[in-house]
Amino acid sequence: VEAAHGDPVLEFGLRRAQGIDGGLTASRAAFIGGCSATSNVLAGKLFGIPVKGTHAHSWVMSFDSELEAFEAYAAAMPNNCVFLVDTYDTLEGVRNAVRVGHALRRRGHELLGVRLDSGDLAYLSIEARKILDAAGFPDAQVFASNDLDERTIEALRRQGAKIAVWGVGTRLSTAYDQPALGGVYKLSAVRRADGTWEDRIKLSENPAKRSIPGLLQVRRYSRDGGYVGDVIYDERNPPGETVRYVHPTDALRRNAFGAGTESEELLVPVFRAGALVYDVPTVAEAQARLREQLARFHPGVRRFDNPHEYPAGIEEGLNERRNRMILALREAA
Amino acid sequence: VEAAHGDPVLEFGLRRAQGIDGGLTASRAAFIGGCSATSNVLAGKLFGIPVKGTHAHSWVMSFDSELEAFEAYAAAMPNNCVFLVDTYDTLEGVRNAVRVGHALRRRGHELLGVRLDSGDLAYLSIEARKILDAAGFPDAQVFASNDLDERTIEALRRQGAKIAVWGVGTRLSTAYDQPALGGVYKLSAVRRADGTWEDRIKLSENPAKRSIPGLLQVRRYSRDGGYVGDVIYDERNPPGETVRYVHPTDALRRNAFGAGTESEELLVPVFRAGALVYDVPTVAEAQARLREQLARFHPGVRRFDNPHEYPAGIEEGLNERRNRMILALREAA
Repeated sequence: VEAAHGDPVLEFGLRRAQGIDGGLTASRAAFIGGCSATSNVLAGKLFGIPVKGTHAHSWVMSFDSELEAFEAYAAAMPNNCVFLVDTYDTLEGVRNAVRVGHALRRRGHELLGVRLDSGDLAYLSIEARKILDAAGFPDAQVFASNDLDERTIEALRRQGAKIAVWGVGTRLSTAYDQPALGGVYKLSAVRRADGTWEDRIKLSENPAKRSIPGLLQVRRYSRDGGYVGDVIYDERNPPGETVRYVHPTDALRRNAFGAGTESEELLVPVFRAGALVYDVPTVAEAQARLREQLARFHPGVRRFDNPHEYPAGIEEGLNERRNRMILALREAA
Repeated sequence: VEAAHGDPVLEFGLRRAQGIDGGLTASRAAFIGGCSATSNVLAGKLFGIPVKGTHAHSWVMSFDSELEAFEAYAAAMPNNCVFLVDTYDTLEGVRNAVRVGHALRRRGHELLGVRLDSGDLAYLSIEARKILDAAGFPDAQVFASNDLDERTIEALRRQGAKIAVWGVGTRLSTAYDQPALGGVYKLSAVRRADGTWEDRIKLSENPAKRSIPGLLQVRRYSRDGGYVGDVIYDERNPPGETVRYVHPTDALRRNAFGAGTESEELLVPVFRAGALVYDVPTVAEAQARLREQLARFHPGVRRFDNPHEYPAGIEEGLNERRNRMILALREAA
């Protein structure tokens, strides 16, 4: 969505997602992340996400000719004609789409566009655009798909591709560049029968794998609306007006936020004593909130190549308590 | 399982699998693939897979000391004591396991083992083995886990690690080295109202993406019990005693299977007219069948590094019909 710079991105990933469950959660997440619509009709029904898509290659192949296939589709779906044109010969397919587009127009409907799903998408989209414009269909859009991701979309835009709508599947709905999320659950404190809390820590030879003890909360700081950094602190010792923090794995990197900043707490209760205490937003509300929040991050943090590291750390007092616990456990062992 | 050379491999992947659905199918597939057991109790219940596992770090951390945690676990589960020893200090953890092991033995139970989940697993397993042997627990086993995969298991075995049971999670239950399966559905023939079949093909500039037309079946050939190759053919033109085939993407690579071979058909109907017509095996039967079939592939095909390519191709007559269709469609366009 960022790479498309405002062009609509359609989520087409169901067939490659990991199971029905994976497909539904991927469609939901893709829409929240800014996609305009999904080809997953069950996600449309369950979450209210707009549904968009075209027909399959097998639709074309089930007819004696591509032209017959397009005509049959136009008869059944006159207001949803985006023809997939690359089953046999892509530009010949665009010409067949134009032929059916003229017939549609005579019946009071309009050709919405053509979809390219293989070959050189930059070249083919430019040629398809010319054919559509010359035939009197300037509003018919060129849709493109075929293993797209943010880098391919950026590259195609740089190459002057005349693509107006991007269909993204496999690399959106699978964990393509990060097949497993390395998240872990660690106990950070236990509550005694008398209601008091005791801190807990798990050690490791790898400093990045030592857990953080305490009743933890994350506070996000902003200045003039823009986010400047996040700090993990212990709720029993909340930071004052100025918070000093230490980089989680590099003790020599320290920083502070103070005057002129605003802050908000990022962790909120969802269930309490078995009851839902959170006002679950609709996917459209979540999409709007994400867009609003994303705009508050510095572009340097958001860029794809060599992004700037977003400041995040452990509040200084919490960090010192953690270090004392580590040293005490080492001595005890 | 291949890398473990007969040592038991336990599937521990649920927490990193993609959703409940992904976790269940991963547990099922891992067991069929040769794992001995799963830590996923729902998969155990639904599919009859043996369930095995140990406790979490948080169990240890919820007590004032590791020794107390092990004692409480032994009181609750005296016949299932595999202690996770790396919460604070791994070898001190093994000594705590031994202390509780002596107490267990006095009560008529035996320590099953210890689990290592971090650090240098080769070194720590050798040291743990020494501590267990010296303390009189030669039958207690060293379990290991921590982002294991077939290469780490092979490397640890080469380094002389004293690991008897391998717990494999993330890299087994996620599609770690292949985040999306590039399978596609293509129409290969359509049935006319009069019952006759017509072939269909999808073209592409990429030869590997051209579809194969016809009523397709796959025949696997074997000689003296060992598999020698697979051939795709059209059911209307089944191969005779000798089958000639063409490599799917390299027309110059041709081969034949003939006298002295046996063969079997790989595609079998599962649903017919909406009804299940397949005798679905249990997971244990599927595991046994996989083991039997895997043993029939040449070791050169099965090795991890630079494996030999298993012979597979398109029956010569089918390949010629396909080429004629491609040329005819090209000319028509």
